[in-house]
Amino acid sequence: MLAKNELEVLAAIVGKENVETSQASKLVYSFDATPQFQAMPDAIVSPRTPAEVSQVVKWCNEQEIPIVPRGSGTNLSAGTTPLQGGVVLLMKHLDKILEIDEENLTVTTQPGVNTLELMEAVEAKGLFYPPDPSSMKISQIGGNINENSGGLRGLKYGVTRDYVMGLEIVLPNGETIRTGGKLAKDVAGYDLTRLFVGSEGTLGIITEATLKLIPMPETKKTVLALYEDMDAAARTVSKIIASKIIPATLEFLDQPTIKVVEDFSNIGLPTHAKAVLLIEQDGDAAVVEKDIAKIVSICEDNQAIEVSMAASEIEAEALRSARRSALSALARLKPTTILEDATVPRSEIANMVEAINRIAEKHQVEICTFGHAGDGNLHPTCLTDARDKEEMERVEQAFEEIFTTAVALGGTITGEHGVGAMKAPYLHLKLGDAGVGAMQSIKQAFDPKNIMNPGKMFANENRKRVVVKQ
Amino acid sequence: MLAKNELEVLAAIVGKENVETSQASKLVYSFDATPQFQAMPDAIVSPRTPAEVSQVVKWCNEQEIPIVPRGSGTNLSAGTTPLQGGVVLLMKHLDKILEIDEENLTVTTQPGVNTLELMEAVEAKGLFYPPDPSSMKISQIGGNINENSGGLRGLKYGVTRDYVMGLEIVLPNGETIRTGGKLAKDVAGYDLTRLFVGSEGTLGIITEATLKLIPMPETKKTVLALYEDMDAAARTVSKIIASKIIPATLEFLDQPTIKVVEDFSNIGLPTHAKAVLLIEQDGDAAVVEKDIAKIVSICEDNQAIEVSMAASEIEAEALRSARRSALSALARLKPTTILEDATVPRSEIANMVEAINRIAEKHQVEICTFGHAGDGNLHPTCLTDARDKEEMERVEQAFEEIFTTAVALGGTITGEHGVGAMKAPYLHLKLGDAGVGAMQSIKQAFDPKNIMNPGKMFANENRKRVVVKQ
Repeated sequence: MLAKNELEVLAAIVGKENVETSQASKLVYSFDATPQFQAMPDAIVSPRTPAEVSQVVKWCNEQEIPIVPRGSGTNLSAGTTPLQGGVVLLMKHLDKILEIDEENLTVTTQPGVNTLELMEAVEAKGLFYPPDPSSMKISQIGGNINENSGGLRGLKYGVTRDYVMGLEIVLPNGETIRTGGKLAKDVAGYDLTRLFVGSEGTLGIITEATLKLIPMPETKKTVLALYEDMDAAARTVSKIIASKIIPATLEFLDQPTIKVVEDFSNIGLPTHAKAVLLIEQDGDAAVVEKDIAKIVSICEDNQAIEVSMAASEIEAEALRSARRSALSALARLKPTTILEDATVPRSEIANMVEAINRIAEKHQVEICTFGHAGDGNLHPTCLTDARDKEEMERVEQAFEEIFTTAVALGGTITGEHGVGAMKAPYLHLKLGDAGVGAMQSIKQAFDPKNIMNPGKMFANENRKRVVVKQ
Repeated sequence: MLAKNELEVLAAIVGKENVETSQASKLVYSFDATPQFQAMPDAIVSPRTPAEVSQVVKWCNEQEIPIVPRGSGTNLSAGTTPLQGGVVLLMKHLDKILEIDEENLTVTTQPGVNTLELMEAVEAKGLFYPPDPSSMKISQIGGNINENSGGLRGLKYGVTRDYVMGLEIVLPNGETIRTGGKLAKDVAGYDLTRLFVGSEGTLGIITEATLKLIPMPETKKTVLALYEDMDAAARTVSKIIASKIIPATLEFLDQPTIKVVEDFSNIGLPTHAKAVLLIEQDGDAAVVEKDIAKIVSICEDNQAIEVSMAASEIEAEALRSARRSALSALARLKPTTILEDATVPRSEIANMVEAINRIAEKHQVEICTFGHAGDGNLHPTCLTDARDKEEMERVEQAFEEIFTTAVALGGTITGEHGVGAMKAPYLHLKLGDAGVGAMQSIKQAFDPKNIMNPGKMFANENRKRVVVKQ
């Protein structure tokens, strides 16, 4: 709880209208897109400038008041729930695209810019910012950087990390540093830029970013391939890559997911198929033509029961939108939807999907699976009801087995959602105690008072992930 | 100086034949490819397994004995000189390629593998490992990772960092951790993988790496464009990128460099040109054809006095080899050659070259410039004589001005050579005291006894870079 005089200090920095303490506001910022996690902040503070961010951070550090930086709160790892109260730091005023540099192929932006707006702004100049998290219509670029967001184009184009060239960062002590720049090559010391990408707001506040752009691909084509069984779909994925083609998108949906997405979007998805691959290639028109022809023939050679090409960009966009709406569609079915992102090497996708189905059956829970087949990033999604304590216990056990299996197959506990509060109890599965210890030493070095998004990434105890925090 | 009983401990771990202490051996490992820096180690130790690396590190940490990990010592930043004595840790027994995984497009390797051998091994399977430091015929992949090596293909394909997916690391306390994996997406905690890439052996010892591969481009074409002045060449570079073409290589040589390279290689380079661009495009044959035609026309539109295409791959390789031999060629002219890598945003190349020439004239020192024009990574190279103290003082002043200018233009003090001992006094120019402090806090967290490659990256004092250490 912040005292009146403490709120006055904050108001003196950012202006009275930028310190919210109403019960309604606090409730809004007590949770993010992650089910099962909720905690009330003491105040919501919206600095108007990077200098104000620095002042707020410096003061909070002195007072040992927790700070939770927050964009649009679309993360799925309880990365922005204010578990220890304190200040939710909103980036809503830092919402300007500062420069699109066509000579150096960069965009320099404040963190509060909407992801899709940024993409459209650079596309208007014939440039391309590839990372496309499914939440891009709502998410902010600062959130994407803090979470190292992935997306459908990760296989060919990489993730947010691969596009962050430089950052302005306010450290927990209030000092401002600048890392990197408009430089393809920079080896002046440790790679602080990439250390901060995906650091989930636990090391400092990003107040500006310079992002790499690439030329817009000339054209794009979309193929939908239907299968009678998952193995054939997984085999197709492997064969495409082994044939030295890297598609821009290589998405997978299982039958339960197809059914609910179709029910939600009504675009004529083939609900009779056991598995669907959504495949896209982009680039030079002649190359796309050649690659797509080869992809179609690989699909057919691997027991696809139907292969169809999107007739137009409108139809292709409908397919992509349908895929992106998978979470929303699934979320309508049951009171609680838990979307996970266990990730394995591409070669292990069929094994992983089989394991997920086996584990779901064993624990008698309902899990639909879809995701980024090309990069092994799957989204097993559990449809459940948080009010049913007994079922939640089984859900808990099932997910623990899924994470353990992913790691055993050479994978990871989280491919693109981050650790947050949700995965913190599982981090040691991937990294071991020594690995977690190495990360904690970095946290301790940057933020000795543990004010930056406390309770995230590192577990205080062996708390289970589906326990409601209130 | 290590005592007899201390050497016996080391011999008990790695075998007697793997602990060298002869004066001749110590002399060999007292310097690397960097002129002006030399210091004698106490012993050269060559572990046979990662487990032995761990034991050596653990013991050295307990005894507070410095460890300098070393591949082939081709670095140009005095990154592997044993400035505080201790153990030079050689990777010569960790020299196996462990696996080429054609399904996941990865190669897993020990650190002591020669870079070119690794490239050729994956190329034999139709795969491509793009980072191509000029030292690749001699360098080792572990050294490349520790230095985050760049190369001629950095513009289109990125640098070593962009290809490291996972690492096995022995921490200074002897614990072994594994980061990342065969995973395009992994956000389980801080990005330790990229933190270790380019950490110059100051945070731990890399004992295994999993590297990303891509399909081998179908074909490649090489163009040589000659100019009467640098501005026209720089303008060409900008226009190529602005036309949304990203060439695989876009190298620049100034006239003095062309002359000495031709004198060295005798392949008929045009010594009458004031500046030369070596431009390559790779990829699908039709796209390469189209891009190269556009590149040729952009060269011609921007006052190239001659544009010629390599008639064959043999001729193209001769041109590339000539470019890679620039340092060797220049090194023949004067007793001391200091090769720098001040780097600027691509748009500032012409300004930077002009500034270098102005600074060289002002201080009356001889500087040739060549480098990677496409990514702004220039190599101003000073031909001098370390025995001439008065001249060295002027060289020192000239380079300090060059670094300051690079940073003022939005660039960095080092694009691909690393900080090492050589650039340590200049790190604050790029990062400020707060940035250097943030990096030092990471060093302190991982290596509190400062045994890992001490004296590198962070300056103890304001020592000048050209002072000989003995």
